[in-house]
Amino acid sequence: MQNDLRTSNLYKEILRSDIDAFLVTYPANVSYFCRYPIDDSYLLASPKETFLITDFRYIEEAQENIKFSVRELTGSLSEDILKIVKKLKIKRLGFESRHLSFYEYGRITGALGEEVELVPIYDLVEKLRIIKDEGEIAKIEAAVKLTEETFVFLKDIIRPGVKELDISAEVNRFIRLKGAEKASFDLIVASGSRSSMPHAKTSTKIIQNNEPVLVDMGVEISGYKSDLTRMFFLGKIAKNIKQAMDVVFAAKRKAIKRLKPGVPIKEIDKAAREYIASFGWSKNFRHSVGHGVGLEVHEGPHISRKNNSCLKAGMVFTIEPAVYFPQKFGVRLEDMVLITQKGARVLNGTLNN
Amino acid sequence: MQNDLRTSNLYKEILRSDIDAFLVTYPANVSYFCRYPIDDSYLLASPKETFLITDFRYIEEAQENIKFSVRELTGSLSEDILKIVKKLKIKRLGFESRHLSFYEYGRITGALGEEVELVPIYDLVEKLRIIKDEGEIAKIEAAVKLTEETFVFLKDIIRPGVKELDISAEVNRFIRLKGAEKASFDLIVASGSRSSMPHAKTSTKIIQNNEPVLVDMGVEISGYKSDLTRMFFLGKIAKNIKQAMDVVFAAKRKAIKRLKPGVPIKEIDKAAREYIASFGWSKNFRHSVGHGVGLEVHEGPHISRKNNSCLKAGMVFTIEPAVYFPQKFGVRLEDMVLITQKGARVLNGTLNN
Repeated sequence: MQNDLRTSNLYKEILRSDIDAFLVTYPANVSYFCRYPIDDSYLLASPKETFLITDFRYIEEAQENIKFSVRELTGSLSEDILKIVKKLKIKRLGFESRHLSFYEYGRITGALGEEVELVPIYDLVEKLRIIKDEGEIAKIEAAVKLTEETFVFLKDIIRPGVKELDISAEVNRFIRLKGAEKASFDLIVASGSRSSMPHAKTSTKIIQNNEPVLVDMGVEISGYKSDLTRMFFLGKIAKNIKQAMDVVFAAKRKAIKRLKPGVPIKEIDKAAREYIASFGWSKNFRHSVGHGVGLEVHEGPHISRKNNSCLKAGMVFTIEPAVYFPQKFGVRLEDMVLITQKGARVLNGTLNN
Repeated sequence: MQNDLRTSNLYKEILRSDIDAFLVTYPANVSYFCRYPIDDSYLLASPKETFLITDFRYIEEAQENIKFSVRELTGSLSEDILKIVKKLKIKRLGFESRHLSFYEYGRITGALGEEVELVPIYDLVEKLRIIKDEGEIAKIEAAVKLTEETFVFLKDIIRPGVKELDISAEVNRFIRLKGAEKASFDLIVASGSRSSMPHAKTSTKIIQNNEPVLVDMGVEISGYKSDLTRMFFLGKIAKNIKQAMDVVFAAKRKAIKRLKPGVPIKEIDKAAREYIASFGWSKNFRHSVGHGVGLEVHEGPHISRKNNSCLKAGMVFTIEPAVYFPQKFGVRLEDMVLITQKGARVLNGTLNN
């Protein structure tokens, strides 16, 4: 039952890390192995036996859906871990160093005592999650497809006189009627000069004629997410905004053209960034060119000049060059791409700008 | 500028804890002092000077809205902390032990070196947040009021033949058109036997006639949340469900009747629990009777038999007795209450069941 590829990769990493078992505390990582979105739950994984420790409220659902030994969280996590550690005779227990608090670490070391060594491990599961399998790609594609449909719907509802928040209201209805569980993050609708804020909050501002409207959104389907950004224009587009659109659009194409397995990730960032910089706008584009998307809306690989790895088939990430002119306007265009065996595929194929 | 009551309470706690400064890393706690919902940001608070360290994407918004010294997060948090620690000559730096990861703790101790002591502190800000001020109560009241309106709206849209997720779609539209920023958590619409799962996920199940429908929801207004649950019935109510409704309703009243400053919190839990147990249903009601609500949908005070504190004016929390019969049905009724100087007030006064 437990021998699917995800868990067998985990067991390999456990052996390679010279630990007997690994404690997974981060919800997205727990969900990855459960193949089912789940919160407030922990996985204690070992090649001998893997336990899902979950709150009594989720027991009924977990037993229906999850293949691991399901244990009810009784009292405290550290005591539950102690019981399993004794049962499996674990001597070295790995844990997610970025996802265990200082407090919980202290509780667990206190409960386990000196005979069990706790071994901090950095992003073990995150590294496995960077390469998507077919099932994951299908879910991401479904999320992207629905987001593309939403952008078509947006063309009809973005009108002068409408509040940004009203747009968000209609989109939040539309995506659920179309089968999404929810939005993958708070929808950004930023009109006029508000588009210059890279993470503007959707407000009660009324959209005016001749304003650019930036919409950054995604949906979640079976736990997998999408993330796309497009610009909408009402009335006339000012010349400087039109120029910024052309530059960002060309920067996006330059980055996408370079995508194939084996290419250094920093080259992708560079392709978009240098083009934007050639217009004197390097200070107006300060975030990285993209980020992985999957069970989380931001995950590996980080498409930045600091990333020293190379592209591999199965990676899914955004390409989102932008320029921001504070108090004036901003333009961002965001696609999602999949690295294939031979090249790459833009997942949002029907959005042609 | 920095001498409002929230920050002056924080500075008192800093002095009492024998530390020079306190690092706030938890978003809800950072938002509490900024009086503005903010993510990916950190507060380094000291009576001398308080710094908000935030991502460049939020600088523009932060400088408009926030009263602390705003610093851009450059490279790594630990390096930014080091600069401020040197500037303010901090020797003992407190941190939120539940909200700093083992990894980040290691990075910060590494950067600060041996001359600065990092002092773990448990829930310092959470304890301050338990007592709401007038501004907070007004925002919570606005969120509750809109949730009450939504329950009226729900009566019109819950119909046989409609999917649970379609109900969620309409509610997610309604609350935003009415001015909510978002739902305070994923709306639960659980119909028929799905109501027996305390945290059911809203599904594509079609609502049938003669089924109970449990709706658990809340909205967010200026960062403050609401959380209410009601049952809806279509067609006939089965006798056993009607009996469960009566028992849960009476249990809720028994708990609410006991509310006033000075009463031990465990007595509130006991009042509802013992009544339910008198019907032989103690195993069918296993969660606590309530939880605080404010910037988070679950915060202090926890209304459980394990809580040894007493009620105080300014506390806001839920009262939510329930009974669950696995595979059959569940009933939960959830109010929100405010402890006043002399007694208590049910915030959702217009919902009379």
